Amino acid sequence: MRMETEPRRRGRGRSGAQAGNDRRAAATGLRQTAWGQPQLIDAPTCPLDEEGVRAIDDTAMRILEDIGILFLHDEALDILTRAGASVDRDTRTVRMDREMVRAHIALAPASFRITPRNPERAIDIGGHHLAFGNVSSPPNCSDLERGRRSGDRESFRDLVKLTQHFNCIHFNGGYPVEPVDLHASTRHLDCLHDMLTLTDKAVHAYALGPERIEDAMEMVRIAGGLSHEEFDAAPRMFTNINSSSPLKHDWPMLDGAMRLARRGQPVVVSPFTLAGAMAPVTLAGAIAQQTAEALCALVLCQAIRPGLPVVMGSFTSNVDMRSGAPAFGTPEYMRATQMSGQMARFYGLPLRASNACAANAPDAQAAWESGFSLWACNSGRANMVYHSAGWLEGGLCASYEKFVMDCEMLQQVIHYNRPIGVTEGDLALDAIAEVGPSGHFFGAAHTQARYQDAFYEPFLSDWRNYKAWEEAGAVRTPERAMARWKRILAEFEPPEMDLAIAEELAEFVERRRREGGAPTDF
Amino acid sequence: MRMETEPRRRGRGRSGAQAGNDRRAAATGLRQTAWGQPQLIDAPTCPLDEEGVRAIDDTAMRILEDIGILFLHDEALDILTRAGASVDRDTRTVRMDREMVRAHIALAPASFRITPRNPERAIDIGGHHLAFGNVSSPPNCSDLERGRRSGDRESFRDLVKLTQHFNCIHFNGGYPVEPVDLHASTRHLDCLHDMLTLTDKAVHAYALGPERIEDAMEMVRIAGGLSHEEFDAAPRMFTNINSSSPLKHDWPMLDGAMRLARRGQPVVVSPFTLAGAMAPVTLAGAIAQQTAEALCALVLCQAIRPGLPVVMGSFTSNVDMRSGAPAFGTPEYMRATQMSGQMARFYGLPLRASNACAANAPDAQAAWESGFSLWACNSGRANMVYHSAGWLEGGLCASYEKFVMDCEMLQQVIHYNRPIGVTEGDLALDAIAEVGPSGHFFGAAHTQARYQDAFYEPFLSDWRNYKAWEEAGAVRTPERAMARWKRILAEFEPPEMDLAIAEELAEFVERRRREGGAPTDF
Repeated sequence: MRMETEPRRRGRGRSGAQAGNDRRAAATGLRQTAWGQPQLIDAPTCPLDEEGVRAIDDTAMRILEDIGILFLHDEALDILTRAGASVDRDTRTVRMDREMVRAHIALAPASFRITPRNPERAIDIGGHHLAFGNVSSPPNCSDLERGRRSGDRESFRDLVKLTQHFNCIHFNGGYPVEPVDLHASTRHLDCLHDMLTLTDKAVHAYALGPERIEDAMEMVRIAGGLSHEEFDAAPRMFTNINSSSPLKHDWPMLDGAMRLARRGQPVVVSPFTLAGAMAPVTLAGAIAQQTAEALCALVLCQAIRPGLPVVMGSFTSNVDMRSGAPAFGTPEYMRATQMSGQMARFYGLPLRASNACAANAPDAQAAWESGFSLWACNSGRANMVYHSAGWLEGGLCASYEKFVMDCEMLQQVIHYNRPIGVTEGDLALDAIAEVGPSGHFFGAAHTQARYQDAFYEPFLSDWRNYKAWEEAGAVRTPERAMARWKRILAEFEPPEMDLAIAEELAEFVERRRREGGAPTDF
Repeated sequence: MRMETEPRRRGRGRSGAQAGNDRRAAATGLRQTAWGQPQLIDAPTCPLDEEGVRAIDDTAMRILEDIGILFLHDEALDILTRAGASVDRDTRTVRMDREMVRAHIALAPASFRITPRNPERAIDIGGHHLAFGNVSSPPNCSDLERGRRSGDRESFRDLVKLTQHFNCIHFNGGYPVEPVDLHASTRHLDCLHDMLTLTDKAVHAYALGPERIEDAMEMVRIAGGLSHEEFDAAPRMFTNINSSSPLKHDWPMLDGAMRLARRGQPVVVSPFTLAGAMAPVTLAGAIAQQTAEALCALVLCQAIRPGLPVVMGSFTSNVDMRSGAPAFGTPEYMRATQMSGQMARFYGLPLRASNACAANAPDAQAAWESGFSLWACNSGRANMVYHSAGWLEGGLCASYEKFVMDCEMLQQVIHYNRPIGVTEGDLALDAIAEVGPSGHFFGAAHTQARYQDAFYEPFLSDWRNYKAWEEAGAVRTPERAMARWKRILAEFEPPEMDLAIAEELAEFVERRRREGGAPTDF
């Protein structure tokens, strides 16, 4: 890990990360969009009318009232009982009436801010805000040079560096690949340490048992130079938990969510409701089930800490009914995402969705599936987009090239959300009169005054004509992406970190390693 | 050309083309979406507020009132003078006030139907209707096997066959590649003959001088088994004309549009307003200019034939300001398309847009640029989408593989526009109760009753897991597309045509060939 030679004052041990990034970009020519969150400016696309939204809400409520959800966590059962739920301790089935659900969900904020160790990387979640996170949790990774392989720490660090490099990536969504060469008991320590030192963006912690999530919170606190009170006072990190669809919340996920909730840290709940497999084959049914599974866990969070920042997660897609294989970026995926947006807004909650695809290679199929997913996120008004960059194979592989390709698409989504100007200058009547018929606008003063930032400039798309492109080697998109990530990794410099903080963080990791880390037998 | 051995009654010489197609599909396993036009069910995306729409309208009107547009056609000048325009005969500049523009544009229908020789292939243009046309007019074509080459008749016929094969292609947008091995004087006769016999879908005719357009109308009339009166009575074909931006309409285009207008055939007017080059660098300015250039030609059409079915065309994109190269599928392209949709609806006109890209190969860039274009067409509520399948290199090349890839995307857009059901059956409460926690929906009666058409089934996407995909040869998208077009061409059967009509059509072509075809020196 590189570090500044001159330590800076603790608690605000870094600044100017963005300026530094821009300077490096200027120096190396790695042009990219500046850091910043886009604001979704389009009215959301609503496949459901008001009656449809109410019908799905009613179905979700009847699932919670009549069918019930399994909560495999005794303390959760206690908390929910106290909060008014009807709990069958034998089967661990929780039923809650709609009044209880609505009362608890109403406590959640419509939007909130997560502030990582670099306050300039703070992100707003909810409302019109959009935040992109990198690919999370694939067991495998691939690049065009080394091929496909199991994840290891080197690949993990490479992908974390790409996460830090690209300004269009706003948060660490999880491990961009699972580094299976690290022992499971201490993997979380090494991974969090890499994420907290190689990036200065918000981090996710996996809900995989008490020790891991407690370690993660402590490391985020140390990295931020925060007292325990400061850490508890505002969102600094987050977790995402999945229900074990249908209708079940497992212990490790619940336990992690509850620990974050107690310390005021945001919880995302994303049911794994693949329509036709773990959920009904109909989109309305799948979204009703997703809604029920998400809401009851969010009720638990609010019962623990009223007002906790939480996010409703959507991961509903369809399966290939011939093979059972999950599909992503399909028309059904798009509609499910938009419908989820409608439900999240109905409950006043932020929405999490994903940039997902089923393709096995960073080719055209990957691009259309991911592109369709992204436009569904945009038109469905998703606030957090997981897996925004790098995901292949339905999440089983992190591709270096796909990471770079996705960032090209993300930048375009960001640029798409710039408002359209209609001032007198924008309307350009004088320029049109000046150029006249048979003229050309290249040389017009109107153009000269505006051309430098008039249009989105891609870093990966090749717009040369065929002859020029062919003479330059006819390099296709994945190969151009490979050249890009190689250069990014070669030139990578980690963000600044106060030396004292870096030492404290390293000491914590070392101590916890000596203690044996986390148990691996849950 | 293949033909039925048993001629059928003239004037309705075919039927069951769709059923035939489905039968063939069933027989050969070339699964695809059934013939039919999608209905756009989403509210359109509106980047402009009402004030913005009015500002662009006002700017367009001021262009027409104060700056004027060149009409390089004397008879057009006469007609426009009689209709109330102020015409400077020396410079051929036409100015028209907004009352004149509005009065004429108000005569155009909001939607209309084009009925080709097979009435089952009739397409509705306008309102919620969406129609896709194939790639038009590239000078080059390419496929993975033979590489890139100048267009010839064989490639032309191949691409016309693909146009007929795919149910998601609703009309022939023009020549899918320019067959430069055919002499220019008679090329239109051979091309129209191929299009009218290898397809039974609506055809476009190029406005390239009087003889070509008159020949085209006569051939469409003959192919439809129509009297002259029947031909004139309803839309049977269409043309698209481009202004020579900025602010000029050339003679051949105007002449062709005027000839179609006289016979009640639809005219699309698509200004070529690349922002920063032939139009202002600002989107609002470019759309204002596009609007003015389109409206004045549409006024001419309405002056000739009040109530003529016409379409407002959008082709506004941006250029790479460093090289001047046109860019497509960009954020600016998307917004320009959506803004054009707002303007078209403001005037009560159907909108034409395009599935465009700048990529040089059928790779990921091609897919994201085309995918972004298509979603802009969908969200901007375009009614006719030109170049829907096959376009590469900013329109300079028709790719066989891209054609097939685009059709996969088009089918998904079609499927996306299916309404979402929210009946009690769709909401699936009983199925959720029946399956319960830890169950699976594959075997549920609710699933079994619906799984066969619950989800979109792709013909080109490969959803197998990595291992299965790799063992099957790790075939990437373009190579899969190649296998598909080869099979389509190998199995292609032309649609039925009445033998007497086929003979009359062939005789017409032969006679016009003997007469020398059309002059080539305009």
